[in-house]
Amino acid sequence: MTHSYVLTFSCDDEPGIVSAASTALLQLGCTITDAQHFDDQLTGRFFSRIQFDTVRADLEKSEVSAGLSPVLTSFDATWTVTSTDERMRVLIMASKLDHCLVDLLYRWRTGELPMDVVGIVSNHPREVYQNIDLGDLPFHHLPVTKDTKADQEAKLLGLVDEYRVDLVVLARYMQILSDDLSAKLAGRCINIHHSFLPGFKGAKPYHQAHARGVKLIGATAHYVTGDLDEGPIIIQDVEPVTHRDTPDQLVRKGRDIERRVLAAAVRHHLTGRVLTNGSTTVVFAD
Amino acid sequence: MTHSYVLTFSCDDEPGIVSAASTALLQLGCTITDAQHFDDQLTGRFFSRIQFDTVRADLEKSEVSAGLSPVLTSFDATWTVTSTDERMRVLIMASKLDHCLVDLLYRWRTGELPMDVVGIVSNHPREVYQNIDLGDLPFHHLPVTKDTKADQEAKLLGLVDEYRVDLVVLARYMQILSDDLSAKLAGRCINIHHSFLPGFKGAKPYHQAHARGVKLIGATAHYVTGDLDEGPIIIQDVEPVTHRDTPDQLVRKGRDIERRVLAAAVRHHLTGRVLTNGSTTVVFAD
Amino acid sequence: MTHSYVLTFSCDDEPGIVSAASTALLQLGCTITDAQHFDDQLTGRFFSRIQFDTVRADLEKSEVSAGLSPVLTSFDATWTVTSTDERMRVLIMASKLDHCLVDLLYRWRTGELPMDVVGIVSNHPREVYQNIDLGDLPFHHLPVTKDTKADQEAKLLGLVDEYRVDLVVLARYMQILSDDLSAKLAGRCINIHHSFLPGFKGAKPYHQAHARGVKLIGATAHYVTGDLDEGPIIIQDVEPVTHRDTPDQLVRKGRDIERRVLAAAVRHHLTGRVLTNGSTTVVFAD
Amino acid sequence: MTHSYVLTFSCDDEPGIVSAASTALLQLGCTITDAQHFDDQLTGRFFSRIQFDTVRADLEKSEVSAGLSPVLTSFDATWTVTSTDERMRVLIMASKLDHCLVDLLYRWRTGELPMDVVGIVSNHPREVYQNIDLGDLPFHHLPVTKDTKADQEAKLLGLVDEYRVDLVVLARYMQILSDDLSAKLAGRCINIHHSFLPGFKGAKPYHQAHARGVKLIGATAHYVTGDLDEGPIIIQDVEPVTHRDTPDQLVRKGRDIERRVLAAAVRHHLTGRVLTNGSTTVVFAD
Repeated sequence: MTHSYVLTFSCDDEPGIVSAASTALLQLGCTITDAQHFDDQLTGRFFSRIQFDTVRADLEKSEVSAGLSPVLTSFDATWTVTSTDERMRVLIMASKLDHCLVDLLYRWRTGELPMDVVGIVSNHPREVYQNIDLGDLPFHHLPVTKDTKADQEAKLLGLVDEYRVDLVVLARYMQILSDDLSAKLAGRCINIHHSFLPGFKGAKPYHQAHARGVKLIGATAHYVTGDLDEGPIIIQDVEPVTHRDTPDQLVRKGRDIERRVLAAAVRHHLTGRVLTNGSTTVVFAD
Repeated sequence: MTHSYVLTFSCDDEPGIVSAASTALLQLGCTITDAQHFDDQLTGRFFSRIQFDTVRADLEKSEVSAGLSPVLTSFDATWTVTSTDERMRVLIMASKLDHCLVDLLYRWRTGELPMDVVGIVSNHPREVYQNIDLGDLPFHHLPVTKDTKADQEAKLLGLVDEYRVDLVVLARYMQILSDDLSAKLAGRCINIHHSFLPGFKGAKPYHQAHARGVKLIGATAHYVTGDLDEGPIIIQDVEPVTHRDTPDQLVRKGRDIERRVLAAAVRHHLTGRVLTNGSTTVVFAD
Repeated sequence: MTHSYVLTFSCDDEPGIVSAASTALLQLGCTITDAQHFDDQLTGRFFSRIQFDTVRADLEKSEVSAGLSPVLTSFDATWTVTSTDERMRVLIMASKLDHCLVDLLYRWRTGELPMDVVGIVSNHPREVYQNIDLGDLPFHHLPVTKDTKADQEAKLLGLVDEYRVDLVVLARYMQILSDDLSAKLAGRCINIHHSFLPGFKGAKPYHQAHARGVKLIGATAHYVTGDLDEGPIIIQDVEPVTHRDTPDQLVRKGRDIERRVLAAAVRHHLTGRVLTNGSTTVVFAD
Repeated sequence: MTHSYVLTFSCDDEPGIVSAASTALLQLGCTITDAQHFDDQLTGRFFSRIQFDTVRADLEKSEVSAGLSPVLTSFDATWTVTSTDERMRVLIMASKLDHCLVDLLYRWRTGELPMDVVGIVSNHPREVYQNIDLGDLPFHHLPVTKDTKADQEAKLLGLVDEYRVDLVVLARYMQILSDDLSAKLAGRCINIHHSFLPGFKGAKPYHQAHARGVKLIGATAHYVTGDLDEGPIIIQDVEPVTHRDTPDQLVRKGRDIERRVLAAAVRHHLTGRVLTNGSTTVVFAD
């Protein structure tokens, strides 16, 4: 039986890294089945995702890691190797709007999103989601007010630790994370927000977009950083709208874009296709 | 032989306007072949575009206007009626980047843009465009510096008057029009500019977009107003980009979007499909 | 309080129909809020959708119909008038693949699809859908074999009559309807199927598309006619794919397109925006 | 100064090829700047495109080839190595419709298409293109009738040899190439044709698409093979259309898609991004 692994790494762009990594894989008895590299010539940083198979039934991930480590260390690379059998442990956070939550759960059940959902956190009680089959998923009601925010975030972080969470997905979770929490979740927390041309700040963005007569509305999935809605972008998409679209219709069309952009970003993250590159990302095509 | 006309009007939304207008057309012996109405329920303003044919060979536009005038006046409408044989008189303004200019001229020659190009204005000399067949088109070199700007704009306005220009197209004309000139050209001057998610202000926008890792780049065609790049939007479009796209490639992809968005906006304007609605537009589909 | 209605009609293109209809509406005390007309110059057929409000609380639909009938009859029009409060009664049919079913139910619950779901029919038992909250919706298991097909379709037609079904949605229902049933459901049965460039007939279309190296996959929602998958098209959409996409990934991407194309087609039908025109359709923008 | 090269190869998927190739490049003093690999698990064929730099000013392409040859030969690979300074020699063929010709020439002059245009062939005389600045480009009028077809194709092939043509672009050249000529130009001749959902055979495809009420029209760029319009697909794209679009408007919209799809296919071919894979292609993203 074949075992399949994904190696991702980034390092300064020096000659020999591809040769060294691929030779190490060959010596481990592994066959490269897919590889994408990218050399950012503006920053001199090199990024790579290599998918490889082994037919050695007894090849453990620890052995793979041990075989790759000397090479990658010598290039001072940041790297991870994961078995495609491993599934990230994901915590989904939602508020009243449940379209992204419903969509993620559906794609998880059909196997489209290869993850283990370890729980759902909401600032609203479970009754809000009565039409959704949450099955046995642990549900955590963590209400939040200005005064209790620090406490609520501490509880949230407790869950992240307790469940050994690999990824937090903000599925239209309508609370702003503190800078401190954002920093602690850096690189493992994905958010979705609306995007317009031009952009709008403040409340009721769809109403602002309508007033301005935009002809495209969109959504952006990005990693959360301290700078709200400004973290490294993973996926973006848009849809055309017209003068006929009332603010309510913009909201409806926005829901469709939001859920498919968020699902695509999560899928790319889960399969090791997103590497951060300073304030931007390298997204290897799936 | 059939004559074809387009009536566009906007007025406060009161009962009876469609009935009155269509009855007036019936009495003139005209048949409605296409009509689109839009009632902006947020502002209480009604917009209409009615295309109609007449088989009366002797029906003059003045007679059509005279027949429609009482009805439209009684509703205090802003209105125009044009024969589809009439062609708007268009002045194209360009700078060194000629992709939009080339594209507009090609679409004009093939009949795709039903307009009369009455001249080209550039702040650069004709030699810049030596690979473009300008044919007999009058070419006006109007260089501009900070000190000569008022003078240059006066000359430009002189051309607009002299040629009885219906529409000025800023085909990547890289000079900012003064508030005064913008006001004088209100509703008859279309500009194209890049658009990103999120937006960027200042110089080298494609470089800024690259640094931010945007995954979509786009262009917006809009009417020029005193508020630069903020006039009523006519058409927008985007294309996906990836981490592989250098700033130079973003510029190249941007050119494609800019030229097709500008051409689409001009075509919609030329065929009476764009009605301004405060800070936004009603764009009737073609 | 305002009541809102939609009038749709088609008739031969003769002068005066818009004038007559809008005058009749005026006399009923109604205000046109949205209208789209289309004159098919190749066939000489005229299509119209007029949305109008009345402030007369006591205005019944029967009175509206009575007021419009003489005019529309005199033009020999095919017409319907519906209150926007009325909701179509919809029967959803599904097989094992449940992505379209799930999506339709979600959009129904959120109010995005203004319909009454009167039941679900499947050729598979209810257990197949155990992760979907079907609530109180009547579920009908109608298994089918070659031998029982006539009988099964009779039962299905019985349900259509019993529930006074306005629209049957084939949400990836994998059985081919007989010509007879298709004819009986003409104009009130919407199907979704995959579409490729070029098209493929026969089994495993996604595998055929992969073998041919198509770069776009899509879906088409259409009315069912005796000519399978060839009825009047309502909505189509596509997504880009690459050589990396295995047949399984094509299937996954296809699911996303299928569910959003089907939902859009159903929404347009429910809101009276689709008028059939021989083998094609007039779809008035929403 | 840096020299930049592109290596493309395909071979049976055996362990070690990436290691061996990248090690050979390292020994030549080259640095990989971009690489994309693809392992077609259905056919067991491996495809690769590796872009690399050398700072050795004296490194000749022959030396690069000599250094890579043993490795690639040992894996029985089909391979090419080209300097990014080398430009393919391109012959453009056109008929009366000149939109693709104009577009290709514009993109060539702006440097967007890195190629040497060695001539233009048309079955119509030069006068047809009087509004296009052909500059010093050799123009060959090769009229064709049923009787002279063999002769005309012989002349065409003579030009291909004489000019050492690397790529023939059929820019809406409306003559069908014979099987014999198609075979001789296999892999170095790109064609553009319209695509619809569903597809249509025979004359006036845009009229057929209109009659069928399609909601998307598109174009496909592909390599020419004996099986007309059925060669390996390189790029496809579509645009939405509506019931308002007459056949003439479909043709107009089709022109826009055709020219941008063709230009994209040519650009991908020129930069070594398209590898054929039986009846399909591997297209490495630009």
